[in-house]
Amino acid sequence: MNRIPFYNTRISGSFWGERLNVSKNITVDAVYDRFKETKRFEALKCSKEQQDREGWHSHIFWDSDVAKWIEGAAYLLEEKRDERLEAMIDNLVADMCASQKDDGYYNCYYNVYETDSRFTNRMNHELYCLGHLIEAAVAYYHATQKDSLLCLVKKYTDLIIDIFVNKDSAKFVTPGHEEIELALVKLYHATDEKKYLELSRFFIDQKGCNKKDGDHYAKWCTPYYFQDHLPVREQTTAEGHSVRAMYLYCAMADLAKEYGDEELLHACEKLFENVSEKRMYITGGVGSSRIGEAFTVDYDMPNETAYTETCAAIGLALFCRRMYEIKPVGIYADIAEKALYNGSISGVSISGDTFFYENPLTVDLRNHNKNPSTTDKERYPITQRVKVFGCSCCPPNILRFVNSVADFLYTCDENTLYVHQFMNSETSFEGKSVKQITNYPSDGKVTINTSGYKTVAVRIPSWCSNFTASARYTLKDGYAYFSDTSEIDIDFHIKPQFIVSNGIHENSGKAALQYGPIIYCIEGIDNEGDIFSLYADINTDFDVTYNDYFCLPVITCSGYELTPAASLYYAAENRHFNKRKLTFIPYYGMENRGETDMAVWIPLK
Amino acid sequence: MNRIPFYNTRISGSFWGERLNVSKNITVDAVYDRFKETKRFEALKCSKEQQDREGWHSHIFWDSDVAKWIEGAAYLLEEKRDERLEAMIDNLVADMCASQKDDGYYNCYYNVYETDSRFTNRMNHELYCLGHLIEAAVAYYHATQKDSLLCLVKKYTDLIIDIFVNKDSAKFVTPGHEEIELALVKLYHATDEKKYLELSRFFIDQKGCNKKDGDHYAKWCTPYYFQDHLPVREQTTAEGHSVRAMYLYCAMADLAKEYGDEELLHACEKLFENVSEKRMYITGGVGSSRIGEAFTVDYDMPNETAYTETCAAIGLALFCRRMYEIKPVGIYADIAEKALYNGSISGVSISGDTFFYENPLTVDLRNHNKNPSTTDKERYPITQRVKVFGCSCCPPNILRFVNSVADFLYTCDENTLYVHQFMNSETSFEGKSVKQITNYPSDGKVTINTSGYKTVAVRIPSWCSNFTASARYTLKDGYAYFSDTSEIDIDFHIKPQFIVSNGIHENSGKAALQYGPIIYCIEGIDNEGDIFSLYADINTDFDVTYNDYFCLPVITCSGYELTPAASLYYAAENRHFNKRKLTFIPYYGMENRGETDMAVWIPLK
Repeated sequence: MNRIPFYNTRISGSFWGERLNVSKNITVDAVYDRFKETKRFEALKCSKEQQDREGWHSHIFWDSDVAKWIEGAAYLLEEKRDERLEAMIDNLVADMCASQKDDGYYNCYYNVYETDSRFTNRMNHELYCLGHLIEAAVAYYHATQKDSLLCLVKKYTDLIIDIFVNKDSAKFVTPGHEEIELALVKLYHATDEKKYLELSRFFIDQKGCNKKDGDHYAKWCTPYYFQDHLPVREQTTAEGHSVRAMYLYCAMADLAKEYGDEELLHACEKLFENVSEKRMYITGGVGSSRIGEAFTVDYDMPNETAYTETCAAIGLALFCRRMYEIKPVGIYADIAEKALYNGSISGVSISGDTFFYENPLTVDLRNHNKNPSTTDKERYPITQRVKVFGCSCCPPNILRFVNSVADFLYTCDENTLYVHQFMNSETSFEGKSVKQITNYPSDGKVTINTSGYKTVAVRIPSWCSNFTASARYTLKDGYAYFSDTSEIDIDFHIKPQFIVSNGIHENSGKAALQYGPIIYCIEGIDNEGDIFSLYADINTDFDVTYNDYFCLPVITCSGYELTPAASLYYAAENRHFNKRKLTFIPYYGMENRGETDMAVWIPLK
Repeated sequence: MNRIPFYNTRISGSFWGERLNVSKNITVDAVYDRFKETKRFEALKCSKEQQDREGWHSHIFWDSDVAKWIEGAAYLLEEKRDERLEAMIDNLVADMCASQKDDGYYNCYYNVYETDSRFTNRMNHELYCLGHLIEAAVAYYHATQKDSLLCLVKKYTDLIIDIFVNKDSAKFVTPGHEEIELALVKLYHATDEKKYLELSRFFIDQKGCNKKDGDHYAKWCTPYYFQDHLPVREQTTAEGHSVRAMYLYCAMADLAKEYGDEELLHACEKLFENVSEKRMYITGGVGSSRIGEAFTVDYDMPNETAYTETCAAIGLALFCRRMYEIKPVGIYADIAEKALYNGSISGVSISGDTFFYENPLTVDLRNHNKNPSTTDKERYPITQRVKVFGCSCCPPNILRFVNSVADFLYTCDENTLYVHQFMNSETSFEGKSVKQITNYPSDGKVTINTSGYKTVAVRIPSWCSNFTASARYTLKDGYAYFSDTSEIDIDFHIKPQFIVSNGIHENSGKAALQYGPIIYCIEGIDNEGDIFSLYADINTDFDVTYNDYFCLPVITCSGYELTPAASLYYAAENRHFNKRKLTFIPYYGMENRGETDMAVWIPLK
């Protein structure tokens, strides 16, 4: 199956139209400004003299931050070239090119510090940075045909092939942070040079197999952290640093497709199953523990301390997309959709200029700074998005993710168009076209007009128990196949429903509100009193009202409030509940209107 | 009102009779053996040469461990002298006396290390150790009339008066860990020398008032940690290290009584109210955070990471006892009873030889060592009691606590006997007598025979909604006052009931099972499957069966199990519950039969 890349699509109006506008008008400059302020751009000049003079120093992962910003900005140029933006990028690229070593090496840290220590420390992100530079280079080249950065990364990658494959002269064999593996597949497609694809396969094949990597861990981590605990084809559970894991799985899926590697595909399927059925929050967030930013064990999903890094949810969506590019099985697009509307987009404020790294599912403000006895505080995720982090991977990641969100819409083969996601949009691809007219997911009606396709396969989301369509269809693997393709009117009859979880101890007796793909939460700002004394009623009626601020519905319903009691402990039979209104907002919009208590999971009465 | 000290009472049979047997037959030697093995006794010789040669070193709080063991052992001598035990104690005392400095100073750490640094580091427990030595000396002197240790502590305390009060020459003013304040009141009563009581008041009056103490904190803590945040009479919330706090409140209550200090009593009342209504687990455990072993904020009671140190629950019981020695108000004895039967006694195994420092309310084994990615693990309380801790305050504390448990039974004034607790026992005091015949709390029937009292006031526990008595009474402040005192038959009609909590977010939608004063839990060992999928039914009937192992009833009832689902997330309306039996055991007996999942709070269906 073929991907239909995002730049073939114009999204307008509705939820993603608005998110794209904010990304274009606000986020791209907000991230740029912060990166400029924090010297990330100056660092590209690789001047030790300057850094010493000005009293700052470049960091091992700054190249990747810059690269993701370039990639995200480049995506905006696909719709319309922009002199200002291109000048910004061109300056950055020029600085990098000027700092590239004769042998091809480029790294804003190692070009300045520890200059004799290239490829000696597997923790230090050199290959990760190159991976993101490759993605940036490919994106910018595609949008502008400017090839300076592409030339830089090709030359650098050729050096990598020489050192890692030909000479085996690095202190380690596979990257400490996966990313280059998936980027090399993009480089292969951009250049048609198979050596890049083969380098990717080399890294994937060596992972978990090579003793040389065994010595290159920091003391606090184990091989699981890097997904090195087993050869990748033998891995069946999602382990370790969640972003690393997701990027690895993306590359594995890419290579499974490129090489028709069934064993690799099977591993991807098992890993997807483990993530989606046992290790994923209802928001699509993954990686529950702050310690190692890692997966832990099945069903371990603490809400208040959920780590669930924005980048990990993005990574999950990217992995899902690759899986449905291989096989149109609905669950892949279902989970991509879950991550899209919830745990990834929650990482950027509605205003577009501030960011979350962690995306908790409960905010209980009274626990924050709760221990006046010590300076060594219990740690909770921050509750208000900030403009930049020291480790600022998420802001430019959300930029490139939103700007290419149309990537998630379609795949096709010669005769069939697969509609995986629903966004009001127009697409042209290889002389064929498709148009979606919809307010989805504010309501469930989608009109799909196509030309050029014999069959249109439309995903029926797994949350949808009842849909209607204007034409006849056959159902297979979560897709409705239509052969009358001129105009398909489909209605998913989205309605709010309370969802419970299986096996997650912390959620016993609790439910979350879902409306189509959107997960909801309650916040103190909308619900007077102590939100943790509120109870849901699964038999309630709902009031669904479109809200301009969230570009999605706000939902109200009737529920209960447990009346405060005179004693700390009292007989259960003396509980008294007041019926009252509950107001739910989309989870992605949490903590946007000031610091407030928030909960996704509500006890059921 | 007068205390009727424990040594006037002989407890037999029933719950406390058995716990006392175990303490006498097992615990006293178990703790002795471990302390011997860990060099705590050798340390009393204060020989640097020996320690260097043998490769160990004495510790700043070892004196207090030894002192608590002596105190606990001495209590056993009240019933019957015991040559073996006395020889063990006499040897320890001889070593201490031989190591006492000419000016009276004695400390097994500072006599060996940092010998020029006495009273320079408020964190280093010198006065805390002396406090426990005083309690031991008073106990051993009372039981045997042997006064060597009493002479040691008197001479040492006289030095303290000289340094801290007369010369103000120490680097700090009040103890970094409270304990000596309450011990000095005991020393005053044992010697009738008021200077000791006055030293106690000096420390209490200076606390939170003296700038000199402000410089003597470790960097990781704040004045709250030591209850130094305010003058004690202005304190209204329980703050800081919970054992320190409880020992402080004990001393405050003692002094309020001794001096008729209404302001101090009022502060005690406010602090008690804050603890019992906002900062206490249903088990009587206090101090919810491991960080600083501290109180945090109102209603913050995490179950799985509950710190709830054994010593803190003991301290709470001791504070409550002092409060009801001042005023017969039922709630004080209610809370003492809660701590007695649950969060304190849970600190020792049923076999009597192993101990918990922390007493969690949930054990979810799958969370233990759940993160294979890192060596830096999430921390949970241990799940199996151990023979000794590095910081081994709890084992000897539970020893002295159990051995003097009859202290909790009675107070009296000229005409009235106050019956605060219920234990099968006989008491003689000042020519009067009282006998309780009861299986309490296995059932609620108590027969009380007294002679010599005009009035008998019997506490009606606050958990009791319906009691019957054989004679007429008047009710006041939680006590039933009987003037026909020859024989009182009272039945509290104990029945199991589900209890909910007020304001504790973590317990939303959940209940705990209570039977009289006993809090119950469910354990994996008795309840097949995943105990976290079990739900309670508040309308169930209960089967209450006395159990020899726990010396208390085991309770079974019908409840529900949520059937595992095929998906991680699914519609609440599709939940399926199976009716099934639930087996509850007394919380104090948790984690005694191997490592197993455990929960006090169960979701309600």
